[in-house]
Amino acid sequence: MNAPAVPGLEELRDLLALAPFHRWLGLGIAEVVANELVISMPWRDEIISNPTVGAAHGGIVSALIDLTGLYTVIAMGGAARATADLHVDFHRPAKPGPLRAIGTPVKLGRQISVAATRILAADGTLVASGRGAYVA
Amino acid sequence: MNAPAVPGLEELRDLLALAPFHRWLGLGIAEVVANELVISMPWRDEIISNPTVGAAHGGIVSALIDLTGLYTVIAMGGAARATADLHVDFHRPAKPGPLRAIGTPVKLGRQISVAATRILAADGTLVASGRGAYVA
Amino acid sequence: MNAPAVPGLEELRDLLALAPFHRWLGLGIAEVVANELVISMPWRDEIISNPTVGAAHGGIVSALIDLTGLYTVIAMGGAARATADLHVDFHRPAKPGPLRAIGTPVKLGRQISVAATRILAADGTLVASGRGAYVA
Amino acid sequence: MNAPAVPGLEELRDLLALAPFHRWLGLGIAEVVANELVISMPWRDEIISNPTVGAAHGGIVSALIDLTGLYTVIAMGGAARATADLHVDFHRPAKPGPLRAIGTPVKLGRQISVAATRILAADGTLVASGRGAYVA
Repeated sequence: MNAPAVPGLEELRDLLALAPFHRWLGLGIAEVVANELVISMPWRDEIISNPTVGAAHGGIVSALIDLTGLYTVIAMGGAARATADLHVDFHRPAKPGPLRAIGTPVKLGRQISVAATRILAADGTLVASGRGAYVA
Repeated sequence: MNAPAVPGLEELRDLLALAPFHRWLGLGIAEVVANELVISMPWRDEIISNPTVGAAHGGIVSALIDLTGLYTVIAMGGAARATADLHVDFHRPAKPGPLRAIGTPVKLGRQISVAATRILAADGTLVASGRGAYVA
Repeated sequence: MNAPAVPGLEELRDLLALAPFHRWLGLGIAEVVANELVISMPWRDEIISNPTVGAAHGGIVSALIDLTGLYTVIAMGGAARATADLHVDFHRPAKPGPLRAIGTPVKLGRQISVAATRILAADGTLVASGRGAYVA
Repeated sequence: MNAPAVPGLEELRDLLALAPFHRWLGLGIAEVVANELVISMPWRDEIISNPTVGAAHGGIVSALIDLTGLYTVIAMGGAARATADLHVDFHRPAKPGPLRAIGTPVKLGRQISVAATRILAADGTLVASGRGAYVA
């Protein structure tokens, strides 16, 4: 078996933009450094959950953790065809403003890979953390 | 301590519609029967993840599991202010078509409540299942 | 591909007893009915976590959820070589006395199967619930 | 409200040894450095799951992740009365030999704290990783 190819930044950006939902969210790949992949998400008012607090919906935060983990596995040369399961811990409300998702590989496997992601607010506070398991 | 009030169907529908993201998703509360809450979601093309398969994004499915669990706790007379954490198992791609989310309470607690939710495609196939833990 | 064979009750009991840890716990398969597998565990004082409450350790409860899910998949004719990941919700302390673990299949898959398990105290109270994902 | 006291190493060791199950496992607190708590576990044959591979039971690995997270929260000055829920990813079989559990705080909260733990074999390989949510 050949080792899977590690895609370049442009290739990753093209892959990410294939999904209509990612385009709706306005996602961008900020950088791939050492063993981290950083994805950025601008704000849009349709993602609000609680209008009093104005915080982003937990489902949006979950989507970010799910997809960042999947692209982290791919960016590190692993294989990730689909998400098997996802776990998310919500630490603080995600107030209006851009979010940053930072993914790290935990285990690149032949059958299953795991990646951990943390979501930071614009000021660097940890908003949520989680991990996804991805099938090859 | 007084038992928390069990809200009626109209009240639940009003609560659900408060969130801009829920309105964007077009969510509706189909029914509250026995110990189940059923939420319906129509299709819209912006939620597509993989354009080849045309399947809904895992983040949308996660959002449905998260919010259905929270409203299930409320519908059963429990207290759920916010999601503490969420676990989702993805079983099959959610092909284009309406989805139905069915929530059941697992434990209504003083500090934390847990509800389990399963997501069904229009033909009744199980697309995903999961549970959320909610803080009072 | 041939459908995997569904093992009989005696075969399941033999499989379960292969693991030294299962023998130490004194596990028994109580019954396989409809789509449920019931495993019983007697009490032993070495499993205590908090000596004031006298409750069973969360790790023991987790072990029960893990192994019951795996044998549920096998009992239902699915393939489960090892646990990929496990999620456990702890609802109440598991006071001294026998525990009963009831497993149900959620999805029997070609690559991954998921089973949900609930742990009941002798009086029927729900002590914990959870699910495992198992690789074929 | 006063900030919770950060316990010393001896105090942590005494707390850990209170649980009969921890004594049965022979657990020791190796060190508390920077923001990590390291717990060590010797081998004993009763914890074997699969006698062919001779690997430790997933429930034992789960117990280590659960308890290490709880003591990590306490060691960092947080409050952790009990585990609310636990997630464990199993990466490789835990072959015979001592295990090391390394816990890190993810979020120290007023109601809920989260800590992540990784389990290493004697040679440093990552055997499992996970996180627990603990109620104050």
